[in-house]
Formats: sequence, structure tokens, C-alpha cells
Amino acid sequence: MFFAQSRGAMDISTILGIIFGFGLVISAMGQGGGLTWFFNVPSAMIVVGGTIGAVFINYPLSDILGVAKVAKNVFFQQELKTETAIRMLIDMSKIARRDGILALENKLEEIKDPFFTKGVMLMIDGVEPAALSRILNTELEYVAERHRMGAEIFMTMGNFAPAMGMMGTLIGLVKMLMQMDDPSSIGPAMAVALLTTFYGVILANLIFLPIAGKLKTRSAAELTVKQLIIHGILSVQSGDNPRILEEKLHSFVSPDERKSTF
Amino acid sequence: MFFAQSRGAMDISTILGIIFGFGLVISAMGQGGGLTWFFNVPSAMIVVGGTIGAVFINYPLSDILGVAKVAKNVFFQQELKTETAIRMLIDMSKIARRDGILALENKLEEIKDPFFTKGVMLMIDGVEPAALSRILNTELEYVAERHRMGAEIFMTMGNFAPAMGMMGTLIGLVKMLMQMDDPSSIGPAMAVALLTTFYGVILANLIFLPIAGKLKTRSAAELTVKQLIIHGILSVQSGDNPRILEEKLHSFVSPDERKSTF
Amino acid sequence: MFFAQSRGAMDISTILGIIFGFGLVISAMGQGGGLTWFFNVPSAMIVVGGTIGAVFINYPLSDILGVAKVAKNVFFQQELKTETAIRMLIDMSKIARRDGILALENKLEEIKDPFFTKGVMLMIDGVEPAALSRILNTELEYVAERHRMGAEIFMTMGNFAPAMGMMGTLIGLVKMLMQMDDPSSIGPAMAVALLTTFYGVILANLIFLPIAGKLKTRSAAELTVKQLIIHGILSVQSGDNPRILEEKLHSFVSPDERKSTF
Amino acid sequence: MFFAQSRGAMDISTILGIIFGFGLVISAMGQGGGLTWFFNVPSAMIVVGGTIGAVFINYPLSDILGVAKVAKNVFFQQELKTETAIRMLIDMSKIARRDGILALENKLEEIKDPFFTKGVMLMIDGVEPAALSRILNTELEYVAERHRMGAEIFMTMGNFAPAMGMMGTLIGLVKMLMQMDDPSSIGPAMAVALLTTFYGVILANLIFLPIAGKLKTRSAAELTVKQLIIHGILSVQSGDNPRILEEKLHSFVSPDERKSTF
Amino acid sequence: MFFAQSRGAMDISTILGIIFGFGLVISAMGQGGGLTWFFNVPSAMIVVGGTIGAVFINYPLSDILGVAKVAKNVFFQQELKTETAIRMLIDMSKIARRDGILALENKLEEIKDPFFTKGVMLMIDGVEPAALSRILNTELEYVAERHRMGAEIFMTMGNFAPAMGMMGTLIGLVKMLMQMDDPSSIGPAMAVALLTTFYGVILANLIFLPIAGKLKTRSAAELTVKQLIIHGILSVQSGDNPRILEEKLHSFVSPDERKSTF
Repeated sequence: MFFAQSRGAMDISTILGIIFGFGLVISAMGQGGGLTWFFNVPSAMIVVGGTIGAVFINYPLSDILGVAKVAKNVFFQQELKTETAIRMLIDMSKIARRDGILALENKLEEIKDPFFTKGVMLMIDGVEPAALSRILNTELEYVAERHRMGAEIFMTMGNFAPAMGMMGTLIGLVKMLMQMDDPSSIGPAMAVALLTTFYGVILANLIFLPIAGKLKTRSAAELTVKQLIIHGILSVQSGDNPRILEEKLHSFVSPDERKSTF
Repeated sequence: MFFAQSRGAMDISTILGIIFGFGLVISAMGQGGGLTWFFNVPSAMIVVGGTIGAVFINYPLSDILGVAKVAKNVFFQQELKTETAIRMLIDMSKIARRDGILALENKLEEIKDPFFTKGVMLMIDGVEPAALSRILNTELEYVAERHRMGAEIFMTMGNFAPAMGMMGTLIGLVKMLMQMDDPSSIGPAMAVALLTTFYGVILANLIFLPIAGKLKTRSAAELTVKQLIIHGILSVQSGDNPRILEEKLHSFVSPDERKSTF
Repeated sequence: MFFAQSRGAMDISTILGIIFGFGLVISAMGQGGGLTWFFNVPSAMIVVGGTIGAVFINYPLSDILGVAKVAKNVFFQQELKTETAIRMLIDMSKIARRDGILALENKLEEIKDPFFTKGVMLMIDGVEPAALSRILNTELEYVAERHRMGAEIFMTMGNFAPAMGMMGTLIGLVKMLMQMDDPSSIGPAMAVALLTTFYGVILANLIFLPIAGKLKTRSAAELTVKQLIIHGILSVQSGDNPRILEEKLHSFVSPDERKSTF
Repeated sequence: MFFAQSRGAMDISTILGIIFGFGLVISAMGQGGGLTWFFNVPSAMIVVGGTIGAVFINYPLSDILGVAKVAKNVFFQQELKTETAIRMLIDMSKIARRDGILALENKLEEIKDPFFTKGVMLMIDGVEPAALSRILNTELEYVAERHRMGAEIFMTMGNFAPAMGMMGTLIGLVKMLMQMDDPSSIGPAMAVALLTTFYGVILANLIFLPIAGKLKTRSAAELTVKQLIIHGILSVQSGDNPRILEEKLHSFVSPDERKSTF
Repeated sequence: MFFAQSRGAMDISTILGIIFGFGLVISAMGQGGGLTWFFNVPSAMIVVGGTIGAVFINYPLSDILGVAKVAKNVFFQQELKTETAIRMLIDMSKIARRDGILALENKLEEIKDPFFTKGVMLMIDGVEPAALSRILNTELEYVAERHRMGAEIFMTMGNFAPAMGMMGTLIGLVKMLMQMDDPSSIGPAMAVALLTTFYGVILANLIFLPIAGKLKTRSAAELTVKQLIIHGILSVQSGDNPRILEEKLHSFVSPDERKSTF
């Protein structure tokens, strides 16, 4: 119930950025007619295909496929907010102190975050604190590594795309220069040649590099929540006072955003 | 009273830089007539809009909105100077030793800096040194992180702006090359196409990158004052001799600027 | 038997990348006839020869020759997968506990990986744990250094190739500009001049830089398997329980890929 | 007396570099007449003014004014050479051991370096070793920071100058393209437009960046001498044998340059 | 006798690289006649002179003169190979154990490497191990620093050369654009203008940057041999068993290249 709303909420700034950026670019292209001049399938294929080709040579298949998992973070808000997690953990702390850790089983279905669920289940199964901490932290490390790799792959695509655009422009220029019989065709031929550079610049600067940037900040936020959950679960398990638990978890939150429930 | 003047003083070098830089550029544009050639709303919208779009995709909304808070540092001098803070702390030290820490309540209204005020209030409330230090240092960390993020966002804008300028120029060139029927229009069309590159270069090199630079140096200065305040408050709380307090705090000041009050 | 299949399996993503990248580029070059325009032996020799020349001046001969050994990693999957290594080590652990370490001699021919073989032979020869660990770790370090050098050399080639392309284009332009008597030859002459830049961009962005990238990730994977083997052999030698051994080795594997055999 | 000569000696390599670099550039500009073509006050004002403007926005005023103090290091040799400092310190060591530390007062006027003078005066005043070391080391840190900031500001100028040159060229090109009525004026107009790029490249590569480089190496040398002085003074104060003192100080000098006086 | 051959052997890869690189470039320039078009003394003087000028402003004279000492490493193989050094040290170890350290004096003339000679002489002179280690390690540090500075200066030249080439091209373009009366002279004038860019690219990418790269790898190899010598001499001095000495020194050699003499 708690997370039904926050889960899947779109990332507002990504959507605003896309509308703003592409809206202005497309309206600039269309201004004074001629929007169709900017669409050229072979040119797009050189830039997109060349970039994908370079990335496939550059990374193992498993890493490239893992990008899809990570890329959704660009469009969707972080599923579990720190404040919700803190509130849930305080609730659990109260239940655990009153009715014992096994009573947390009823809480399990309320948790939508799989990492959180796993941690609580391990606690209910009676896994020792040291083992529980090790298991969750190892998983955290692999999540961090997957995020890092996702951001790095988009960064690499942002570096290759302009080069592929330049390559396409050189192909177009060579063709144009080789057949300059008809002067009236030089202009349009050169325009088409420039399109690949244009695609390369757009792909890099409005898609790949900004996505790499957002993945980095999103990853930091998601890892902070996961660390908060690990600390919270260990604290619940050790039977900490809910008040002390809240104080501990607040160190993960900026002072402005702290809301005490006491 | 103490801070009435220093607070809100404009940053002289920023103002000089703007007058110098933009003055020369604008006078160069206007020289020999034709200043209006350089103003083109659609071109400006591509560069500014594209840069904003890329930054919105690149950062979460909360970080982008936080930039406003930080950006004022570029135009206003640091509100609280080290020498004023040292003088205030020495005063407090004397009062605390003579009349007890509670007597500092009268001093509170003299302090205009919110971080300083918070520290003194915590001291008056009798918060223990360890907790006081932890609270203020956590706040310091969050301020530092906000500053770092502010400088980084301006740096990112400085990197995207020239790319957006190039993108706009490519749009203009493609349009020009596609309709070269009237030779006399080629010159002006190309001039307009170059305008976006021009805007991108100016935005990056006279606005975004220098602002990023100033935010970095300003942030360092502001954090030094805040650290000085934390050390000073802890020293006042522990009842240090004012002379020793001054010596301690002078390690935060360059030897040339140290003015002993003893 | 175990490794017969995994050994020598081609790296799928490299092959896909080459087909994708070069396929699209070549089809773009050939589109509308004129594929032969893009093949020019002297131009290719300037770029390839210049890059090789610069690399030979830049590195000692032994390092350059060592690249060949490393470069095969780009086209072939890592020979020994972590799961296979773990299964082998658990088998060995069971045999060693039941029949003694000398009984592992029969297992030797099943191991195709030379590093793994060397480790098991040292164990059978009764080398002490400390010495065994030191010998294998030193070899690991030299493998890592050879990998690092391989990736660095390809990165250096990726940096020199575009410069050599530009150099070739300048040579072509100077020649063209020196003999502009026949206007009809200007176009083709300039096209040929641009070819070297084109070759430089392709070599760097579809070959050298992506290969450097894959060598880096492949090296990390190979070193992880080798570290797993060292830990596994030391554990077998000390007579660890197979279950504990599996748990130890699973820390080298992402949680998703762990398959317990118990 | 000792330092009369070494102080203020011009830095030979800077002077040679200026003569070489600018001599060749100016003779190349003048070759075949037309030196005046390269002087254009408005173009120079855009590049110099724009760069200064950007630097003023980028740095606080105090840091910019501090550059002047540091920039003289580019033209003048380091005032105090290591060998002179070592000889002076050995002399002092002998005097101090024979006649006591107070006898060093006669030596004071021989020392021209203010840092050295300050150290000796503190020693004569009987400041304790720990305090003396702390005072001199703090001053050393602030000198190092001022040097670092000086080199950084010149580096920043070297980065902004070519961008300002490009901005000026774009202004010139837009103006030229907007009024192409008279074909004979296109050439000279474009030549003038290129002048700002030319100024930007020269300023960055023959002035700002090389100066930043020299400030870095000079700073390292000056800080080494200051560290040598701190060690030497502490050694004199503790009454070390002159022979041991020399051996200690020789660790600051390259083996080739060590000249023992014993 | 031992080193007569290895000393002064040319570095094969440098020579191959020069032949390959320059051979191809020069044959490309000469192809179809017109090799002389590429030689232009004033153009070469701008690029070479400008680069030298910038480097002289950038570095103190002593560092620039020190480059000559280091640059020979690019053309000559490392004088003392690790295997030769190990064999020599094992011989010495046997002699020292049989006849005493003084008996090593006869071996001195066999050693051609001055660093090795110095180490053995210190040992014969009876310098204590701690002092011997300190003296040799200090010398090692200064050698490393001189190497680092040598590579850095070539790297700096590689960065300045293309900028000087661009500066020369701008000078040529301005001159050409200022006197466009004779259309037939435009081509050759532009060709000459491009020559400086061409020289800058060649100097940077076929000379300065590859040399900087080789100096770095050569330096690493030379420092490894020197460290091996220090360890070896200390081991001989302490009377280690030759077998143990060999084992110790083999940790400096890649496993593939180890050749035991026992």
C-alpha cells in the first residue's frame, strides 16, 4: 500500500528535458518548412549502427544486455523514497519489540522493494547479523557495479556517436566530390553529408551523455536508500529503540528533509 | 550590526568581469553598424533550450532547483568574513567566561549568519560538545555537497552549450544547402547558421564555465568560515581563554590577514 | 572434457559489433555505386603505416609483440568460466578429502587452463601454501601487467590513427592546391585527400578504441577467474569442507549467477 | 653581500623563449611585407578583454591581484639558491655553537630572503622549536597555495583565450556574410575575422600556458629552498654539528650539485 | 667484457618506427612528383622555433638541458639487461663468500654501468648497509625525477607543436586573404599556409609524443634494473647464499624470462 504510488512515478526532469530539448530542436528544424530534409534513414543507420557496432566490440554481451535493466532508472523515479523506508523501518522496530521479529511476516507484503523484502526475510529466517550484513552488502556491491557499468556504456556511446557522425559525413563528402558534374546537386548532397554529423551531435548531447549523467546521480540515490535499509534492518534485529533508530537513519537524509515522527 | 555592511555586498570581480567581457563583445558586435544582426530569437532558443533540456535529462529536478540557492554566491560576496567571525567568537568567549554560556542569548540577534546562529543556539541549549560537533559537521557536509553539485551543473552546462551551438549551426547549414537557388541569400543564411555556434561559445566561456569556477572558490571560502565557526563554538563551550581561542582560529587565516586584538 | 566447448568459443558481441558496424559503413559507402572510390592503397598505407610507426617509436619491441598474445581475447570468450572452475574445485576438494591430494593427478588432464594446471601441479608437488600463493600471485601480476599494456597500446593506436589521417589529408590538400590548373580534377583530388581522415576515424573508432575497451573488461574477468582459482586451490590444499569452499568461491560471482550444487 | 648577485637575476630560459618564439612569429608575419595587417586593436581587445572578463568572473578579486606577486617568478631566477642557503646555514651553525644563538643577530643583515630572515629572527627571539616549525610551515603552506592559485589562473587564461579568439572570428564572419555586396572586400574582411583566432592561439600557447608551466616548476624549486631553510634553522637551533647539518641539507640537493665545504 | 655488446645497442623498435613512419609519409609526399612542395624553411622555423620558444618559457634552463641526457634512451637499448645484472650479482655473491668483499675489486672493471659500479665501490669501501641503501635510493629518486621531467618536456612539445602549426597557418591565411588580386596564386598560397599545420601534426605525432611514450617505458625498465642492483648489492653484502640471492632477484623478472643458473 505504502509504495503503490511512488513506484513507477515518472522522472519529471527527464520528461521536461526531453520535451524542452527535442521540442526546440524539432521546431527549429521545421521552421520555414523543410522538416523532412532532416530525416534520412541511411544517415541515421550509419550513426546509430556504427555506435552500436563500436559498443558491441567494446563490451561483453552480458554487460550490454544489463544496460536495459539500468536504463529504466532514467525515466522512473527511484521506487523507494528515504522517508518511506524510514517510516517502514520504525514501524517494524515497534512491531519487533512488541511481538517479536517473526511478527514482521505480516509486514512483508507491504514492501514492494525486492532488496528490502530480501533483507526482512533474512531477518525473519533468523540469519545472524554478521551474515545478514555480508549478504546484503555483497548484493549492494553488485548493484553498484551494474549501475557504474550502465553509466559507463552510455558515456562510451556518447563518445562514439560524434565520431560515427563525422565518418558518415566523410563518406558523403567523398561521394559528392567524386561526382561534381551537376553543380545544382552539390548543395543538397552536402546537406545530406552533414546530416550524420548532426545526428551524432544530437545523439551524444541530448541522449547518451545526459542519460549517463542521470544514471550516475540516480545510482548514488538508490545506493543511499539501500545502505539506509541495511542499517535499519540490523538496528531492528538488534532490538534498538525506535527513537534511536530514527536518529541513526536520519544521518542518511539531508537536514532539510528530515521529518521526525516523534 | 556587525554584518549589516558585509552582508549582500556585491562581488566586485564578477561585476567587473561582466562589464569588461560583455562590454567589449557587444561593442565589437556593434562596431560598423549591424548590432541587430547578432540577435536572433530562434537561434538563442535552440542553444539555451537545448542546453537546459540536456541538463534536465542529466540531473534530478531537486538538484537543478538547488542551483538557484547556490548561484547567488557568484554575485554576492561571502556574507560573513573570517575576521568578523573571529572577533564575534572572542567576544562570546569573554562573555561566556564572565557571565556563563546562557548570557550569550543577547548576542544572538547580532549574528546574521544562520549557520552561526544555529551553532550558538545549540550551545545555549546545552547540547553536548560531541553532539554539537556532529550536528554542525553534518550540516557542513550537506552544504559542501550542494555547492559541489552547483558548480558541477554549471560545468555541465558549459560543456553542453557549444555542442548545442554546433547542432544549431548544422540545422542552419542543411537548410541553406537545400535551397541554394538565390545566391544572394547564401551569405545571410550562413551568418544566421553561425549565430548558434557564437551563442554556444559565449554562453560557455563568458557565463557557465566562469560561474562554475567562481562557485568552486567561493564554496571553499564559505566552508572555511563554517569550519572556523565550529572550532570557535566548541572552544567557547569548553571555556577556552580568549587569547588561545584567537590563536586557534588564526590557523584558518592567511598570515598576512591576521589581526590580533590583544 | 569439461572445457572442450567453452574453450575457443567466439566472443559473440565482438562478432555482432563487427558485422553491424562494418556492414552498415560498407553498405553506406556502396549505396548509389562507387564503393571503389573508398579504396585507395597509398592513403591506407599512410594511416596504417604512420600509426604503426608511431607505436613502434612509442613502445619497446617486446611490448608490441606481446600485444598479439593479448589481442586474441577480443575475439574469443574467456576460456574458463567461473561456474566451471567452481565445479572443478569442488570435485577436487571431495577427491582430496577422500583419497588425498596426490589423487588429483587423474584430474589434471581434465583441466585445459594452463594457470589452473600449474596451480594444481604445485599443490600435488607439495609446495607449501605460502609459496604456492606467492608463485601464483606473482604470475597473476605479470598477466595483469601484460593485459594493461595490451589495452594501453590499442588506446595509443586509437589516439594516433586520426592524427595520421589528418596528416595524410594535409598532404593531399597541399598537392591539390599546388596544381589547380584543371578545375575538374579538384573534386576527386579533394575526395582522395579526405580518405585518409576517413580511414583514421574508422580505424580509431571501429577498431582500436573498442578493442582497447574490450581488452580492459576481458582482463578484469580473466583476473577474477584466476583469483578464484588461487583461493580455491589454497582451500583444497587446506582440506576445507566442499560446502565451505563453494561459499567462499561464490563471493567471486554475482548473486544472480550463483548455482549451488548442494 | 652573499645574495647581491643572485637576487634579481633574470630567468635566462624565459628570455630566450620570448626572443625565439616571438622573434620567429613576428619575422614570419613581416616576411614579404604586410606586418601591419596583423595589428588590429578591436580584435586584440575582444580576445584580451574577453579573457580578462572571464577570469574576473571566474576568480575572486583577491586571487587575481595576488597573481602579480607570483608572476614575477617567471622572469626572475629564484632569489636564493640552495647552495647559498646551505653555506649560510653552516656558517650560522658554527657561530651558534661558538658564540651562542644571540650572536646570529650580526648575520641578519646578510640575509636578503624575507622567509629566511623571519626564521632566524624567531630563533634569536628564543621561540621554541615546535612553535618555530609550526609558524614557518604554516607560512610555507600559504606560499604554496598562492603559487598554486597563480599557476591555475594562468592555465585558466590559456583555456579561455582560444575560445575568445573563436568568438571574435564568429563575430567577424557574421558581419562579413551579412554584407557580401563587394566581392573584393570579402578577402580582407575574412582576414580580419581570423585575426582574433590568431591572437587567441598566440596568447594561449606563447604566453599563458608556458607561464603557467614555469610557475609550477619555479614554485616547486622555491618551496624546496624554504623547506631546506626550515630544516636548517631547526638544526642550528638544536646545536647540531655543522658536518651533520650539511649532510642533512644535502638530501634537498641533487647528487650532482652537492658541494661539500668540509 | 660482459656488457660490451649490450651497451650501445640501438633500440630496434625506434628505428623500425622511424623507417616505417617517415618512409611512408615521405613516399606519400613524393608520389606523383612535387616532394619539394613540402619543404619550406620559414614554415618549419615557425613551428620548430615557436615550440622551442614555448618550451623555454615553460621550463627552467637546467631542466631543458637535462633532456639531452635522457633522450638518448629513445635510440639506445637499456645498457644493462636484468639477466646480465643477475648473473653478475650471483658471481659477486660467490666471490664475496669465498674470498671476502674486498676481492670484488677485480670485478669492478667488468661493470660498465656507473650506478652498479658506484654501488659495488661503496660496498668495498665498507659503507654500512643502511647508509649504502640510502645513498643508492636517493640517486635512484633523482634519476627517476630526471626521467619524468624528460618525458614531460617531450609531452609538452607534443602539445605545443600543433598549436604553433595552426598559428603559422593563420598567418599564411591572413596574408593570402589580404592580397587576392591574382586568383592563380590563391592555391599555392593556401598550400604553403597549410604546411605549418602539417609540420605541427608530424612533429607531435611522429616525434614528440612517441618519444615521450618511449621515455616513460624505458624509464620504468631502467629503474627496475637499478632497484634490482640495490637489492642485489645489499644481499651480497649480507653474505646471502647465491641460490637465495637468485630467488630474490627473480621477483624483478617476468616468469617467462627467468633463467636459473642452478
